Amino acid sequence: MAGSTYGKHFQITTWGESHGKGIGVVVDGCPAGLALCESDIQKFLDRRKPGKSRYSTQRKEGDKVEILSGVFEGRTTGTPISLVIFNEDQRSRDYGDIASYYRPGHADYTFDAKYGFRDYRGGGRSSGRETIGRVAGGAIAVKILNELGISLLTYARSIGTITIPQNANDLLAACRQNNTYCLQEIETRVLQDPLYMPDRDSSQQAQEYLETCMEQMDSAGGIVEGIVTGVPAGIGEPVFDKLDANLAKAIFSIGAVKGFEIGDGFAAAAAKGTENNDNFCMNNEQVTTATNHAGGIFGGISSGAPIILRAAFKPTPSIAATQQTVNTSGKEISISIHGRHDPIIVPRAVVVVECMTALTILDLLLEHTGARMDILKKLY
Amino acid sequence: MAGSTYGKHFQITTWGESHGKGIGVVVDGCPAGLALCESDIQKFLDRRKPGKSRYSTQRKEGDKVEILSGVFEGRTTGTPISLVIFNEDQRSRDYGDIASYYRPGHADYTFDAKYGFRDYRGGGRSSGRETIGRVAGGAIAVKILNELGISLLTYARSIGTITIPQNANDLLAACRQNNTYCLQEIETRVLQDPLYMPDRDSSQQAQEYLETCMEQMDSAGGIVEGIVTGVPAGIGEPVFDKLDANLAKAIFSIGAVKGFEIGDGFAAAAAKGTENNDNFCMNNEQVTTATNHAGGIFGGISSGAPIILRAAFKPTPSIAATQQTVNTSGKEISISIHGRHDPIIVPRAVVVVECMTALTILDLLLEHTGARMDILKKLY
Amino acid sequence: MAGSTYGKHFQITTWGESHGKGIGVVVDGCPAGLALCESDIQKFLDRRKPGKSRYSTQRKEGDKVEILSGVFEGRTTGTPISLVIFNEDQRSRDYGDIASYYRPGHADYTFDAKYGFRDYRGGGRSSGRETIGRVAGGAIAVKILNELGISLLTYARSIGTITIPQNANDLLAACRQNNTYCLQEIETRVLQDPLYMPDRDSSQQAQEYLETCMEQMDSAGGIVEGIVTGVPAGIGEPVFDKLDANLAKAIFSIGAVKGFEIGDGFAAAAAKGTENNDNFCMNNEQVTTATNHAGGIFGGISSGAPIILRAAFKPTPSIAATQQTVNTSGKEISISIHGRHDPIIVPRAVVVVECMTALTILDLLLEHTGARMDILKKLY
Amino acid sequence: MAGSTYGKHFQITTWGESHGKGIGVVVDGCPAGLALCESDIQKFLDRRKPGKSRYSTQRKEGDKVEILSGVFEGRTTGTPISLVIFNEDQRSRDYGDIASYYRPGHADYTFDAKYGFRDYRGGGRSSGRETIGRVAGGAIAVKILNELGISLLTYARSIGTITIPQNANDLLAACRQNNTYCLQEIETRVLQDPLYMPDRDSSQQAQEYLETCMEQMDSAGGIVEGIVTGVPAGIGEPVFDKLDANLAKAIFSIGAVKGFEIGDGFAAAAAKGTENNDNFCMNNEQVTTATNHAGGIFGGISSGAPIILRAAFKPTPSIAATQQTVNTSGKEISISIHGRHDPIIVPRAVVVVECMTALTILDLLLEHTGARMDILKKLY
Repeated sequence: MAGSTYGKHFQITTWGESHGKGIGVVVDGCPAGLALCESDIQKFLDRRKPGKSRYSTQRKEGDKVEILSGVFEGRTTGTPISLVIFNEDQRSRDYGDIASYYRPGHADYTFDAKYGFRDYRGGGRSSGRETIGRVAGGAIAVKILNELGISLLTYARSIGTITIPQNANDLLAACRQNNTYCLQEIETRVLQDPLYMPDRDSSQQAQEYLETCMEQMDSAGGIVEGIVTGVPAGIGEPVFDKLDANLAKAIFSIGAVKGFEIGDGFAAAAAKGTENNDNFCMNNEQVTTATNHAGGIFGGISSGAPIILRAAFKPTPSIAATQQTVNTSGKEISISIHGRHDPIIVPRAVVVVECMTALTILDLLLEHTGARMDILKKLY
Repeated sequence: MAGSTYGKHFQITTWGESHGKGIGVVVDGCPAGLALCESDIQKFLDRRKPGKSRYSTQRKEGDKVEILSGVFEGRTTGTPISLVIFNEDQRSRDYGDIASYYRPGHADYTFDAKYGFRDYRGGGRSSGRETIGRVAGGAIAVKILNELGISLLTYARSIGTITIPQNANDLLAACRQNNTYCLQEIETRVLQDPLYMPDRDSSQQAQEYLETCMEQMDSAGGIVEGIVTGVPAGIGEPVFDKLDANLAKAIFSIGAVKGFEIGDGFAAAAAKGTENNDNFCMNNEQVTTATNHAGGIFGGISSGAPIILRAAFKPTPSIAATQQTVNTSGKEISISIHGRHDPIIVPRAVVVVECMTALTILDLLLEHTGARMDILKKLY
Repeated sequence: MAGSTYGKHFQITTWGESHGKGIGVVVDGCPAGLALCESDIQKFLDRRKPGKSRYSTQRKEGDKVEILSGVFEGRTTGTPISLVIFNEDQRSRDYGDIASYYRPGHADYTFDAKYGFRDYRGGGRSSGRETIGRVAGGAIAVKILNELGISLLTYARSIGTITIPQNANDLLAACRQNNTYCLQEIETRVLQDPLYMPDRDSSQQAQEYLETCMEQMDSAGGIVEGIVTGVPAGIGEPVFDKLDANLAKAIFSIGAVKGFEIGDGFAAAAAKGTENNDNFCMNNEQVTTATNHAGGIFGGISSGAPIILRAAFKPTPSIAATQQTVNTSGKEISISIHGRHDPIIVPRAVVVVECMTALTILDLLLEHTGARMDILKKLY
Repeated sequence: MAGSTYGKHFQITTWGESHGKGIGVVVDGCPAGLALCESDIQKFLDRRKPGKSRYSTQRKEGDKVEILSGVFEGRTTGTPISLVIFNEDQRSRDYGDIASYYRPGHADYTFDAKYGFRDYRGGGRSSGRETIGRVAGGAIAVKILNELGISLLTYARSIGTITIPQNANDLLAACRQNNTYCLQEIETRVLQDPLYMPDRDSSQQAQEYLETCMEQMDSAGGIVEGIVTGVPAGIGEPVFDKLDANLAKAIFSIGAVKGFEIGDGFAAAAAKGTENNDNFCMNNEQVTTATNHAGGIFGGISSGAPIILRAAFKPTPSIAATQQTVNTSGKEISISIHGRHDPIIVPRAVVVVECMTALTILDLLLEHTGARMDILKKLY
């Protein structure tokens, strides 16, 4: 039960099902005095909207956000911000037949096992539409981080078997300006790409790959990569609330994620200590690291270097090809899932990864405010 | 701050530093009536002890656990179980010189950045000895899970570049008995192997690999794999407290973990839907899946199939080879770390992964008890 | 920050301001399979509505609840239930002038001190309308408790200086039937009384008292008393999450509460042990107590006897009489607050106390489900 | 289950039973850089020690605290501080016979109902000795508050039917110095009184009252009052984590508390708005209130005025007089409890109330650090 609230300080509570009246989120713990309007949030929601390319479902989802509380005269008041996105396009007839069987790769069976029955309309609470609440809340977190000098860049690293040739550190090297990074140019490129990839050639190949998938009534997965610059050293708690541990949970709580890495990730497991250690050095009188295999985190605490993470998404389970499964009466049957489904969710998941990353970093940044007596004595 | 407590129901709070007076854990929320004595816990602590092979530090750590509370007449009372392991071998002279500089790959710099200073003796709170509390608490969780018919098997899958040839599903197939699995034989094999690998040939190669590392004053990483059988369908909460999300956090909170996967993990990102979907079928009148790419979890909820996870550990950062770094005065220096360090921590980390897995599954299993009105009406 | 979520298992998150777009609550952790419709909730909201007697504000507040999620085909699904009550009657001109000064007894000054500014329309988040979310969520908790055999009776014990002659144990004695209590008759009487008092004579006197208050442009406080029968023995956690401790927090979180008691409360402080101890005895082969000074709780855990609690409410701070205060520029001024204000909030607060009580007991009841190995073994 | 952890930021987890090996507390979230040694904590523990007057048990409890972790070179490191007090005087034969029956007023029956059995030695976890962990953790909270300019004064207001003539505001008026208060003189007087009362005559009468109780083999209750000065305006969260709500829970979680009040408490319920409202006025260019009926809190947020609270303690349930009860076989019996018991626990509870108050205020003070964008921009 419960489990729909994320965060300790900047706390989001999401609600809503795919084909219910709407989807929403209550953001509690937002610092007072932040300038905030609906368009700040809408532009993030638009990034996860379907129908932007032919590789995502052609449903028209308006997904217009409405602020119901917590903002007064254009600024946050410190009290809960309630955001709602009413569902518009609820063609429930598309989904009605799934009530009687368990779709492979979906949560139909596990919801039934857990609760005794389920809202079968479009996946109910386990639908991808659940992420709308995360994105709406995350958009506010991103805005706060930006005001504190922290920037996020998130993009599709792989689509199926197609992977961009650059790694995150290559991309960062290209936008380095002394001790800071200017991510704007690359961000613009990503936002203009139909698959949210930062490399045009890879995107072209990925589009061809997806064409083939669609012809074969099949689907594809992929990898989302995220970079965060400007996080001050010292964020993250030792032991259980490590920055990387909380990021792992945040990203893994997104449906369809099957793997997560920080820095070199699984590759580090095959490296030697001499190869993997990041030597410390000085740069403009700042302690920094010569390399960034660690992805900006040591002992669960940020080092000031860019944070680098990756999430593996499985292929969309809804496919038109014929599949074997069982129905709710325990009979084995053959099915073929029709309707409007994305052959891949990775491009739409990019903004979700960005938002969960922002929510996590902001939450630990707020956690850190009381860590030292010298700082407390200045505050009080 | 805080962050030393894990779990919502079965809750552990760990404390202690590498070279302080001791290490401990308070286990709160343990169900009453469990038979429990110190040897139940000690056998898990012995699995993480150093000095068992020549690939782990030769310090003699007695690590004897003492139960200080919460057990009466051999059974848990439902109140907090306080466990303490007093430190015996505290040769602080080995570590004294690290007060003045930041070791590459360690948390020295980030602790200083966070708190303004640090306990530099042996890494203080960021030492691997911090995991003793997790293992002591996790041993109790494992015992409870076992009594509920749930079994765990954890082992080293890779050491450096050496990987066992079998995947988790292969190993499971070998111990399948109708709808259940008998992991005992393979568990015995793992516990007898000096590197906790389930494959003798791979272990032999891995030992040679480590010899070379040690000669080169270098270190190695690796991958730990875990399998859990007998988890009933329905465990895990939709949205943020998904079973896989909580496992990701739990495992990533172990120092040195850089990657985490469930089921096929990153490989799923390159697969197609037709390949990755697990078709449902009937087996002995039970709904089950024909394959297990998902690692036993759909929509964050257990399906009843074995849960499969993997964690990537980076190579031990303490190496004898010369490294560049900076000291606390901001000067660039060369260092070479001597003393008793493991060239690899993976074998000792196996039991830590098992314990964090057990703690997470038990916690969500307790969370699930109130999920349905029909069950509540039977209880009250 | 945060602080708008209550409960660990059955969790409510409230949002909304007096004169914003609406008020709402997200109920997370509601067990699946509960029959639920809007009228189940509406009848509780109607009990806190203004305009029911001439002692409460004459604003017409429709306060119609709408279920936005979490209910499918008439039953709860186990996922979050989002409830919204859109504000209808928002005559903000009534309140505009309070932006410039701090009303005595209100939270105007403390909100400014905390957040740097405030939503001054009708008290914003500190308005009594905030309790709508609690009542909406609490109505569901009451319904669940009722299905588990637990009943709640809440009423006004005192209005200003007028107190009913019976104490809670007297009222209980009148409805005792062997080991159970039938509260229905007295509940009906309370719900029909304009001040929600269980004693007609006292209510008559209290109405006269309030008439005088209104003539004098003054306001009154009072005491709300609550009784809960049918709570099984064993609910509540030792140490910090004692049943009485959690009730104390729940009730004290209602605006205007200044005192809280369990059982004999402050009177117990002046009693002797021989007078205050409740002797145990047998009744129908059940362990019970001969008296109930303790109010049904020993060591923070329910004993099976009726739980008895009382909350003291201060007089409404909004009064028409002239008062001295300061404005936001730090100047001392005289003010007189006009507009539609209740001369007393106690009658409308009765249902709020009942709902917070229900939320707390249900939450600890769900906490208790995993307390014993013997019960867990039956469940799994 | 669980429930042995208190606080969100400055978090204490207590463990231990009356007659087990020891009692302890883990303090997590203590800001780094606080000078701390064992005597800082010991002096608080000494205030709750028995054997200081003839009105408390004559057991010799050394209760020497030992710091096991979290302090390095005399300063807190920001990581968990583990404190242990080993039990010395464990004459378990005094308590052995209570295994077979339920003592009136104690938690014997409710523990059995909850857990199926109980540690019957001296009350086990429900013993007053459980408060040792609270006091040890609270001592650190008090030290931090003191460094931030916040002072606490706590004392016995009533013993049985004897009450001091002054109320808290009278006592405060005597130590006012412009906008601040110097509590030291009165604190010294309280600490020197055998019953921790601030009024010598009342203490004399109370001692005579207790003599009579003891002669009659009876026991007494009383009221503890606490004052906190120097809390800045703005502490406390609207809605559920109100400063007064969290104080109510904290104080009510102390065994034997049956009532709690803030400011005028229950008396406010009988007052009129004109009497109870605290008018705002200016003092040395600071907003303040002319009176303090509210006890320093409006809308759950501190106003800067002194915080005033009261807790009612029931008489000690262990009395030598003959009582009726039932045994664990369900038979009605007569008992008479012998052994070393306090005829009153109020004087020893004074420091417990002070510590729970300090823990609560510090926790909300840490919560407040991230409440405003302007403050966050200064920190990061």
